[in-house]
Amino acid sequence: MIEALDASKTPINKKMQFAVIGGGVIGGGWVARFLLMGCDVNVFDTAPEASRKINEVLDNARRSLPGLYEHLLPKEGRLVFCSSIAEAVSRADWISESIPERLDIKQAAYAEIQGHCPEGAIIASSTSGFKPSELQEDASRPQQIIVAHPFNPVYLLPLVELVGDPQTTEHAAMILSQLGMHPLRVRKEIDAHIADRLLEAVWREGLWLISDGVATTQEIDDAIRYGFGLRWAQMGMFETYRIAGGEAGMAHFIQQFGPALEWPWTKLMDVPELTDELINKIASQSDQQSGQYSIRELERIRDDNLVAMMRALKGKDWGAGSLLNQVDQTLTLKSDMPSTPTALGDSVRTTHRVVPSSWVDFNGHMNDSHYGEVFSTASDVLLHGIGADQAYIAQGCSYFTVDLQISYLAECLAGEQINVFTSITLAEGKKLQLSHEMKNAQGDVCATCSQFLLHVDLKSRKSCPPLAAVAEALARLN
Amino acid sequence: MIEALDASKTPINKKMQFAVIGGGVIGGGWVARFLLMGCDVNVFDTAPEASRKINEVLDNARRSLPGLYEHLLPKEGRLVFCSSIAEAVSRADWISESIPERLDIKQAAYAEIQGHCPEGAIIASSTSGFKPSELQEDASRPQQIIVAHPFNPVYLLPLVELVGDPQTTEHAAMILSQLGMHPLRVRKEIDAHIADRLLEAVWREGLWLISDGVATTQEIDDAIRYGFGLRWAQMGMFETYRIAGGEAGMAHFIQQFGPALEWPWTKLMDVPELTDELINKIASQSDQQSGQYSIRELERIRDDNLVAMMRALKGKDWGAGSLLNQVDQTLTLKSDMPSTPTALGDSVRTTHRVVPSSWVDFNGHMNDSHYGEVFSTASDVLLHGIGADQAYIAQGCSYFTVDLQISYLAECLAGEQINVFTSITLAEGKKLQLSHEMKNAQGDVCATCSQFLLHVDLKSRKSCPPLAAVAEALARLN
Repeated sequence: MIEALDASKTPINKKMQFAVIGGGVIGGGWVARFLLMGCDVNVFDTAPEASRKINEVLDNARRSLPGLYEHLLPKEGRLVFCSSIAEAVSRADWISESIPERLDIKQAAYAEIQGHCPEGAIIASSTSGFKPSELQEDASRPQQIIVAHPFNPVYLLPLVELVGDPQTTEHAAMILSQLGMHPLRVRKEIDAHIADRLLEAVWREGLWLISDGVATTQEIDDAIRYGFGLRWAQMGMFETYRIAGGEAGMAHFIQQFGPALEWPWTKLMDVPELTDELINKIASQSDQQSGQYSIRELERIRDDNLVAMMRALKGKDWGAGSLLNQVDQTLTLKSDMPSTPTALGDSVRTTHRVVPSSWVDFNGHMNDSHYGEVFSTASDVLLHGIGADQAYIAQGCSYFTVDLQISYLAECLAGEQINVFTSITLAEGKKLQLSHEMKNAQGDVCATCSQFLLHVDLKSRKSCPPLAAVAEALARLN
Repeated sequence: MIEALDASKTPINKKMQFAVIGGGVIGGGWVARFLLMGCDVNVFDTAPEASRKINEVLDNARRSLPGLYEHLLPKEGRLVFCSSIAEAVSRADWISESIPERLDIKQAAYAEIQGHCPEGAIIASSTSGFKPSELQEDASRPQQIIVAHPFNPVYLLPLVELVGDPQTTEHAAMILSQLGMHPLRVRKEIDAHIADRLLEAVWREGLWLISDGVATTQEIDDAIRYGFGLRWAQMGMFETYRIAGGEAGMAHFIQQFGPALEWPWTKLMDVPELTDELINKIASQSDQQSGQYSIRELERIRDDNLVAMMRALKGKDWGAGSLLNQVDQTLTLKSDMPSTPTALGDSVRTTHRVVPSSWVDFNGHMNDSHYGEVFSTASDVLLHGIGADQAYIAQGCSYFTVDLQISYLAECLAGEQINVFTSITLAEGKKLQLSHEMKNAQGDVCATCSQFLLHVDLKSRKSCPPLAAVAEALARLN
């Protein structure tokens, strides 16, 4: 059945049968990814709470994974809880093993799985530490057992490390790609594969920092998420350092910074000798990885990615995004124009900003949908000015847009300054009509917008007259 | 002058004078952040290319930093290239030193700086390795010299590690906060502060992996950016592991996973002993850091952040975002409805998706601006169907939206399925009129949209008739 899968066919063959042995956080994450990508899954887990736990992971996955795509995912697969390994694996094409990290327990599970599963099935262990050769000891069909090590949350993070028989891992890589993952085939089996060796190194260093009273867990986390964590979400360590090395190149960077490793910095001192051979190996691998871009291009790719991700976190008011919101608040305080009108038709400035690089589309200008975003934000500013602010919303009322008309008059480019001037043209009971004008720095009108809103009770989700605070502010305009 | 700065005042006191000694990648990054946040900067650098290099960094900063904010930054400060340290620092309130990492050169620079700068100025070294006590040796006013270690690109990444005299670093922290940065005050001076100790550990482990032929630079970078790099951009290591530990708590997590550190995983084996005292210290610090959220809440915050960041990278078609685009392409192929109309008024399905969690606003529903985004994407699908695709755009023509009218009829919630049906209602020469209807899974109409577009020559940015391929496709509809 797996043989039927190929890249020219549908992305995921719904006829594939997946089995998951062990339904904890990792096993549950596998279940969620398989099901939401349209595949049927049999689960075996002896824990009394297994079903509740898996359903909790599934709830999280259902509210996050489908939103990553601009198209609907296939119809969710069928989930069956099985009462034995035999029942779970007897027709399975793929068997994920996510049971506790004890070699004897895992080996016993493989013996039982291999006693009942098809010979062509892939048995993929989620182990973060064991090597395939250890897992395969005494197995009847050793090459059938591989490592497919995922990262939590499995339903969102794409990385899977694959280690084992070349043919089996190649087949596995094809299937995982079709599930939206990034299979990383590890060249040599080593304890902890690749990523966990890097994680182990940081964990160890973090424990020292805490043990020595140098930093707290919060301080270490902040050192990561406000700094190199943002870089590593889009480029890894070597591509980042290639940029730092500048036009002089990667070999120069290592020669310059390499010796720092021999300083008495850490308690862990065994460092590979930076021979010319090692330096050249790294430099040529880096050329192959990133050589198609100049350093200047890489800088701009990095910066555009950082702007897009930091703005995404801003929408969530979290981490680096919270800091941006804090600066925005102080910038509002500095604004030299009032954003509250004193009469109907009185125009006030509600927006004073530049176009972010992340708003530009394939036509090289601000995408039409972001004009709507600018006017939506301008309305929020004006609504706050008349008292319909966060505190008002917390009382259970808000304004909803009912009709919007935008005329596009001029293009806006990345980095260009834009201002929006907004007036209230109608305020009658629950009805509110706004008129916006967007201008660039030269004063050219780039767009106009007419927006009709209704005041709404957030409990009943039905329209209603505004509460006293807003009603009085509006009455003063008439 | 610095004394005038306080949180109740303007975010950045424009009267502050900054000086930057050494204008490489880091020094240039400081120059860019100071200037763009509205401050005046004097630069001293003896390198012949200093001015060109700083202007290149400034170009990058100007195209990225201002777009992070929803408000205009203050007017850019004044940049002066000085011919001596004395000239650069004589009236400076803040002096950033970013010269090469050699202690004797740095100490000589401080002697000259202290001979000419105000006594109340802060002298902040960007050193990634030296301790303040080393920098201060033989200085006339030691407490004036601190470490303020930033991260590249300095104009975007918020982290700065501050080490040194408590009063001076407190003052420095206040100023850096006003520049939009996250000052991390390091409790004890140690070589390499905090972040670079973590980075060193990963770098060392990466060198081993390459030296031993286990992985290439590309494979290590992929292990980072498709996996834990995404996690670390929003939560650090300890908050992430707190979630992995689940309801059992952080102490349980360390007890369970801690011993793994004593396995023969790496070549570097000195690990702190996991005494009860250390375990409790970590657990209570973690409670203080994240205890206000339940594990379930942390999972959802993490997932919403990941969705928002991965969608941001999708817009840039980079890293984890490229993978999402690849799956979207296979999902399009699977679509069971044609997206090309055969006659005017003929309605085809152009969107079939769910509402991502990152589209929901404070009213608990899909923000009004994302209705525009949905219709914009629906238009792209239809335009591709009539031949105005990426290849057509590459030939120098495209359609621009000129007028858009949206009627909002029903709310859409996160995770809800939406479909858009689009028809061409007018196709005459350069004019194109589209009509969209957005429906939920129950078939209720959530919104309608009328969109008027003009065909445009991307060189002249003026309207023109479509090229043959599109003109013929449209002619067949009439």
